[in-house]
Amino acid sequence: MGYNLLVEKDLNKKLIRRLKIIEGQIRGLQRMVSDNKYCIDIITQTSAVKRSLSSIEDAILENHLDTCATKQMAAGNASKARKEILHVYKLKR
Amino acid sequence: MGYNLLVEKDLNKKLIRRLKIIEGQIRGLQRMVSDNKYCIDIITQTSAVKRSLSSIEDAILENHLDTCATKQMAAGNASKARKEILHVYKLKR
Amino acid sequence: MGYNLLVEKDLNKKLIRRLKIIEGQIRGLQRMVSDNKYCIDIITQTSAVKRSLSSIEDAILENHLDTCATKQMAAGNASKARKEILHVYKLKR
Amino acid sequence: MGYNLLVEKDLNKKLIRRLKIIEGQIRGLQRMVSDNKYCIDIITQTSAVKRSLSSIEDAILENHLDTCATKQMAAGNASKARKEILHVYKLKR
Repeated sequence: MGYNLLVEKDLNKKLIRRLKIIEGQIRGLQRMVSDNKYCIDIITQTSAVKRSLSSIEDAILENHLDTCATKQMAAGNASKARKEILHVYKLKR
Repeated sequence: MGYNLLVEKDLNKKLIRRLKIIEGQIRGLQRMVSDNKYCIDIITQTSAVKRSLSSIEDAILENHLDTCATKQMAAGNASKARKEILHVYKLKR
Repeated sequence: MGYNLLVEKDLNKKLIRRLKIIEGQIRGLQRMVSDNKYCIDIITQTSAVKRSLSSIEDAILENHLDTCATKQMAAGNASKARKEILHVYKLKR
Repeated sequence: MGYNLLVEKDLNKKLIRRLKIIEGQIRGLQRMVSDNKYCIDIITQTSAVKRSLSSIEDAILENHLDTCATKQMAAGNASKARKEILHVYKLKR
């Protein structure tokens, strides 16, 4: 099941833009490592990437709750919906 | 200040290999989003990328403690070394 | 709004038992600090307490999704339910 | 090995004060559970306790680096010091 069609286009564009920035940051990290950059600066950067990924997760869960989960509840699949929300909650760090 | 020359080459190669895998995962995430893949599967994947980045951070801090931090302590820069270790510890999630 | 009456009693008992263990661990931490115990051992213990609290959170969210959130959805309060699930997800570390 | 004697007294007092507040919060959580308080409010509170514990960990690691770890390095136990710092870093969430 995909995104709700009403919200999908704008959100997908935003998410892809943010994932492209992260892709650039990962390539930057590769350069930092091969240029022997300072360990502390590298960890500061990996940490920033992890925070960006977390904020993408927040946006995707928000969309999920507004669309997929709502439809699942309405369609009598509440148990699946609950299991999956709990799954991503436990994964979260 | 870069990595200790003795450990650098092998570790750098390993880290770059792992960062290239992560780069591939980020591009995979872009495809998942543009293909409207299921939200829960996307979050499961971002979560895996964050765990890979955390394990890279562990390896870099280990190297930092073994090389840079040790040299800083020996060179009378213990205060800088301590401040930086505390900095990455506070950043860690 | 409280717990669903069917699941409440057993879960509440279990949670209180676990919170009493945590209370004991917090008092143990106070003793460790006033006895000048080794810093690393203290941090290892605070970390264990945080993991216990996280696992209590998982159990409470599971119960919330099975009871309160389900009732809210059924009662037309889906928006409140979604907002609150997102809130605890963002809080999670 | 305990805290450095110069910093110990003040830091220990502060830490015990903060751990007593946390003990009170844990007892508050027990009351919230037995009073069937709202799940979301309980999780918000466990989350606050975890953040307080993290900030205690930061203070203890800072003290550790300033005292124990510095002494270990000076005494030729650098390897033990590094291993332990890495240990708490990996534990951190």
